[in-house]
Amino acid sequence: MRYLVGVDIGGTNIVVGTVAEDGSAVHGVRSAPTLPEEGPEAVLGRIARLVQASIAETEKTAGIARERVVGVGIGSPGPLDRDRGVVLLTPNLGWRELPLRDLVSEAVGLPASLDNDANCAIYGEWWVGAARGSQYVVGLTIGTGIGGGIVIGGKIYYGTSGVAGEIGHTTIDSTGRRCKCGNYGCLEAYASGPAIAARAIEGIETGAETRLPGMVSGELSKITAQTVYEAAKANDEYALEIVRDTAKFLGAGVANLVNIFNPDTVVIVGGVTTAGDQLFVPLRGEVKRRAFKPAVDRCSIVPGELPGTAGVVGAVATFKNQVWGEV
Amino acid sequence: MRYLVGVDIGGTNIVVGTVAEDGSAVHGVRSAPTLPEEGPEAVLGRIARLVQASIAETEKTAGIARERVVGVGIGSPGPLDRDRGVVLLTPNLGWRELPLRDLVSEAVGLPASLDNDANCAIYGEWWVGAARGSQYVVGLTIGTGIGGGIVIGGKIYYGTSGVAGEIGHTTIDSTGRRCKCGNYGCLEAYASGPAIAARAIEGIETGAETRLPGMVSGELSKITAQTVYEAAKANDEYALEIVRDTAKFLGAGVANLVNIFNPDTVVIVGGVTTAGDQLFVPLRGEVKRRAFKPAVDRCSIVPGELPGTAGVVGAVATFKNQVWGEV
Repeated sequence: MRYLVGVDIGGTNIVVGTVAEDGSAVHGVRSAPTLPEEGPEAVLGRIARLVQASIAETEKTAGIARERVVGVGIGSPGPLDRDRGVVLLTPNLGWRELPLRDLVSEAVGLPASLDNDANCAIYGEWWVGAARGSQYVVGLTIGTGIGGGIVIGGKIYYGTSGVAGEIGHTTIDSTGRRCKCGNYGCLEAYASGPAIAARAIEGIETGAETRLPGMVSGELSKITAQTVYEAAKANDEYALEIVRDTAKFLGAGVANLVNIFNPDTVVIVGGVTTAGDQLFVPLRGEVKRRAFKPAVDRCSIVPGELPGTAGVVGAVATFKNQVWGEV
Repeated sequence: MRYLVGVDIGGTNIVVGTVAEDGSAVHGVRSAPTLPEEGPEAVLGRIARLVQASIAETEKTAGIARERVVGVGIGSPGPLDRDRGVVLLTPNLGWRELPLRDLVSEAVGLPASLDNDANCAIYGEWWVGAARGSQYVVGLTIGTGIGGGIVIGGKIYYGTSGVAGEIGHTTIDSTGRRCKCGNYGCLEAYASGPAIAARAIEGIETGAETRLPGMVSGELSKITAQTVYEAAKANDEYALEIVRDTAKFLGAGVANLVNIFNPDTVVIVGGVTTAGDQLFVPLRGEVKRRAFKPAVDRCSIVPGELPGTAGVVGAVATFKNQVWGEV
């Protein structure tokens, strides 16, 4: 059995792990803050150290010799030029025309591949997670933003310029909330982590009764989506309403995907899945109300099964696909 | 050269034509009202007579012996079971579990195929129309409703239960206009022919100044989308506003498709294309504003090039694909 290192680069954290080539195990999971403000060289240094640390830990704890680690799959925010292994532009990280694949490859002395972070996470869920065995997968990654990935017949669907799956910036309300991207009514403006927190805070400021302020010592700006899910789990009625509203917004976006793509699986990845059935039950209901019956009847809407490592595992799967031509 | 008959079944009219196997010519185009209220047998009789009439006319006018006509491709509203050649349910035609493919085949004595009408129209545009040579095509058919079709790598994309491409019922305004499907804010509720007419009439009833009422002798219910386009061509300011609004709504829907699918071509088929640049210029502008730049930059948004016959020609292309395994 060979092993591959997966690198998942986010705006906040970098996560790295060493994955068996059949996806059956993940060893030496390490993470560190991205700190993009320190510049690309500092981030590259951190990535290289994390990769080495993950390989060393895998050797130490699982007895897997480092010679058996044969490559590095990288998932990065985009847009990217996959063929050249270059990050074209990431506003969150401040990178522009960065030849990330070759820089990491040189730094760690292993062949590397580069793909979009959301594609990696959804591909990971298709490979060994909640969407395994599915032929037509659409996935959403919900965090600071909302990304997406599409897997058809075991292959990531890239589209004509490699940027397919920008599901977060599909419009669900053309005259609605302003999005960071400059438009109005994007799904991301309603259902990303920060948008969920913002909606919660707006209601509190206009008088909603809830335990949320008490959970952050009255500092409303400290309310995050996770605070809302915690309060909902404790049956805070207002937090439950925010979660149900989130399900409605997500439901409109997911119903669009179901009507367009007719997928067998919609997988949702990210912190939002900790809301569990409180989110997924009304979400499935909203999709059922909005989407075309023959499409809904054949579609499972499920949370990811690889919390924290979908991106790492999926980056390894994209390496296999890009470099070995098979997964 | 062999020939194939294409049959395009709509809620209002049936159109039939005899098409060269390479798509280079369409002969003997015939049409008749569908009159679905007379029941499926009457409609089937009409289809068979139209097919025979088209073959006879092709023989007479183009000198093509009827022996060279070797099959019939049928495009019908759905949902369908393509493998069995059965129309599962069409509310507009009142059909349910109708084995249309085999019934037509028996009636005319030729092998037949069945596919969705919108798929056929978009496949026709891919085969010999505005999207020829494109690898990633998304198309909208705008008429009484809004249908859609997706062509990836020269093949219709069907999804897991064969109903992909229901673009008309994607949500662009989740709390917006009521749609016939029961939801709120579907693209079809804003940009179908009847929706365009309804928006125009609503504004007139609340005092808009326009020549539209004069064009229908004051009978507002006679205003159609075509009336609006005619008035816009004559520079009626209110009609132009309705067309620009239509472009905005369509733009939100098309931007969603561009962000999700990253197509090289978006082709729009149907009466709405008669509005020409008055529609397409603001439509392209709205998509550019709303969609992701690397996707927009690589995408052409174009009117269909086969007005009236895209469905007929495309039905023949789906026959070739289904029966001969190639187009």
